[in-house]
Amino acid sequence: MRKLLDRMVDLVRRGELALFTRRAHDFEPADLAEVLTALDEKERVSAVQALPPELSSQALAEMPEEAHAEETLAALDPDLAAEIVGELDDDDAADILGELDPKRQEQILSAVEDRSEVDQLLRYHEETAGGLMTTHMVTVTDTSTAEQALEEIRRQAEEVEDFYQVFVVDSDNHLVGTLPFKDLVISRPERPVRSFMTDADIFVTPDLDQEEVARLMARYNLPSVPVVDGLGHLLGRVTFDDVIDVVEAETTEDLLKFGGVSPDEELGAGWETAVRSRLPWLSINLLTAFLAGGVVYSFQHTIQRTLALAVWMPIIAGMGGNAGTQALVVTVRRLALGLLPEKGFTRVVGKEVLVGIINGLAIGTVVGVVAAFMGEGPRLGLVVFLAMVGNLMVAGFAGAFIPILLERSGVDPAVASSIFVTTFTDVCGFLLLLGLAGMLLL
Amino acid sequence: MRKLLDRMVDLVRRGELALFTRRAHDFEPADLAEVLTALDEKERVSAVQALPPELSSQALAEMPEEAHAEETLAALDPDLAAEIVGELDDDDAADILGELDPKRQEQILSAVEDRSEVDQLLRYHEETAGGLMTTHMVTVTDTSTAEQALEEIRRQAEEVEDFYQVFVVDSDNHLVGTLPFKDLVISRPERPVRSFMTDADIFVTPDLDQEEVARLMARYNLPSVPVVDGLGHLLGRVTFDDVIDVVEAETTEDLLKFGGVSPDEELGAGWETAVRSRLPWLSINLLTAFLAGGVVYSFQHTIQRTLALAVWMPIIAGMGGNAGTQALVVTVRRLALGLLPEKGFTRVVGKEVLVGIINGLAIGTVVGVVAAFMGEGPRLGLVVFLAMVGNLMVAGFAGAFIPILLERSGVDPAVASSIFVTTFTDVCGFLLLLGLAGMLLL
Repeated sequence: MRKLLDRMVDLVRRGELALFTRRAHDFEPADLAEVLTALDEKERVSAVQALPPELSSQALAEMPEEAHAEETLAALDPDLAAEIVGELDDDDAADILGELDPKRQEQILSAVEDRSEVDQLLRYHEETAGGLMTTHMVTVTDTSTAEQALEEIRRQAEEVEDFYQVFVVDSDNHLVGTLPFKDLVISRPERPVRSFMTDADIFVTPDLDQEEVARLMARYNLPSVPVVDGLGHLLGRVTFDDVIDVVEAETTEDLLKFGGVSPDEELGAGWETAVRSRLPWLSINLLTAFLAGGVVYSFQHTIQRTLALAVWMPIIAGMGGNAGTQALVVTVRRLALGLLPEKGFTRVVGKEVLVGIINGLAIGTVVGVVAAFMGEGPRLGLVVFLAMVGNLMVAGFAGAFIPILLERSGVDPAVASSIFVTTFTDVCGFLLLLGLAGMLLL
Repeated sequence: MRKLLDRMVDLVRRGELALFTRRAHDFEPADLAEVLTALDEKERVSAVQALPPELSSQALAEMPEEAHAEETLAALDPDLAAEIVGELDDDDAADILGELDPKRQEQILSAVEDRSEVDQLLRYHEETAGGLMTTHMVTVTDTSTAEQALEEIRRQAEEVEDFYQVFVVDSDNHLVGTLPFKDLVISRPERPVRSFMTDADIFVTPDLDQEEVARLMARYNLPSVPVVDGLGHLLGRVTFDDVIDVVEAETTEDLLKFGGVSPDEELGAGWETAVRSRLPWLSINLLTAFLAGGVVYSFQHTIQRTLALAVWMPIIAGMGGNAGTQALVVTVRRLALGLLPEKGFTRVVGKEVLVGIINGLAIGTVVGVVAAFMGEGPRLGLVVFLAMVGNLMVAGFAGAFIPILLERSGVDPAVASSIFVTTFTDVCGFLLLLGLAGMLLL
């Protein structure tokens, strides 16, 4: 497969566009999208020009957001661009055009034959149910029989690409129920759909955040979910394939937040964007680093007397940071998945503190022995041992306590926790090591 | 909703099981599962005993893995347990029973009426296509017409809970194609299915890793994918709802690996498991911490001469660690999503180095000025400035280079990168700060 795709890329690069187009018919849209993504902008434009619009449209729709299909569209002759947009599903068209500035958007849309649906979708924020939904769906009225419904489905299905449920509406287009396909084919032809439809008690409004939409569909195992306005009118539907994309995007976002990168930084962004996204976080980190540095500053005399302490500083602080991060990822994930019992707070924090003490005893024994034999004698060993146990205990506490506290204060624990936890373990690590040394090594 | 579920929990706790059972009929399985999850083991068993098996089975199937539905099953009277297992879809039954030891598994299964399907599924590893698949599906033979296929679907649909595609097999049960529902209802009754089915060129084998299955279904937007053996016989199908669960589980796994926690540690695991999962990672970290400590050790005399260096050590090393992690999460995620161009290696690393230099100049200027005015004069300021710029440049390089190198060597970059990157930034940070101090502060 890999090789087949590479060969397609080469065909475009060598300018053999006729052969490329002939072969393209055997590929799935997602595979063609991968070929387009691998090309540079100029090559991509020539490839899209060579493909028939029904193929190029689907391939552009499947390109990852980072590959900027909208740039390619904008670089095309407006008539060809409009033709491609006309071939796109309305939700994909809105997604791609939504990335362009209003002027270029209008330039393309003005040449599109039926732009009303795309116009409607462009009004919603892209990270909401409205931004994910398509207005293409199959609906039947609640007065139909099973046979009439099947008839209706045959009529509408030509236009709707994939559908997994049929929506039932009243004469005012209010959503009243859904018909799973299965029930439709197995029911007697003369049965009214009202008698076997499922009540429409699961639906979303267009302004619902995409993450909530994904959670709802995953929870209830829905292949598609209806979108209704505040008055209950059916507007569109979101399908499972959009949801899988959302879950992937949210994973990226969570990992970036955890690493201190703004979730707005696209993965392939240039250096200017990367600096803008990361420098603010580094600046906050600098403030907390000064805190740790301040602790060291106040113990300078202790360090002067026992220089070996300078060697153990990064070891105690670093191990605390690692252990704190371990407790943190587990707690953050439990919070994200709603797996943390409301009342089990003490038990959760208590477990992490216990884990910290046990790991601290193990690691502390190793470092204590090494320190004792490194020249300063058993008293330094004891100081290092106690500081390690103490700091890993603190790390367990901070790793569990801080994200729970942030969550309850309404702050996203994924984004702010790691900075607080490592500050905590740095400061406590230095305080423990240098403070104990001040007491025990005099 | 929240409140409704809390009230159900209270009903069980107060022992009002008759009322609980009556109300349970109005809830979705996923919601009942949440109620069961919130209960403790004893309460859960009494709730399950009170519910009719067709409700309790679905609720148990929807419980998160961490809530251990199998424990509840094993605590029931074997006949009731067998009745519940009989109501479960075969894949859910295999998932739950697979968590029990063989003896208790056999005890329950021996009382199940038709155990052959579950037995078959229990043979596959739970994290493979075989472990995800159900053997319940709708199949038609390739000699049928559209009308005969619809007839067949009506017959089979009674037993199959949800289906989104119909599979076409030859007389030997070889998979030859799939019929999207839509095409089936819109085609003329006398048309042979062979003439409008989709060729079966997308399928998986039972041993394929679940992550690959998820990626395939997401890529091609498939509501279900057929599972075939090495000879092309149709064994079962995996549906989109399993895939959403897989994507969520993999997210948890990635975040845990990133934080240095074994992905085998369940989120709600006890302290013994947590220690076993985290201590090995801390031990590896300790070795790298010794490396950083060793650098400090070899510069003890420099520190003795300029004690203020001890204050700047954690600041330079810490900021390097943060900047390295930023470059790392972006690169790891690009690798995971396949967004890194094969040949763009130098450009990717180059960008991160550039970002490091720019952020280094900004942060370095601040710390340089502070250091210069802190008492040791402008030369210390220069040392701190240069060390910060250098270390953030190194951080950008390591954050991008190390995961790419690991990936190309066949090592999972998510699990091993962060330890190498922070070791790198610690060691280089100390070397730069103390080395430059040795040269410039004499």
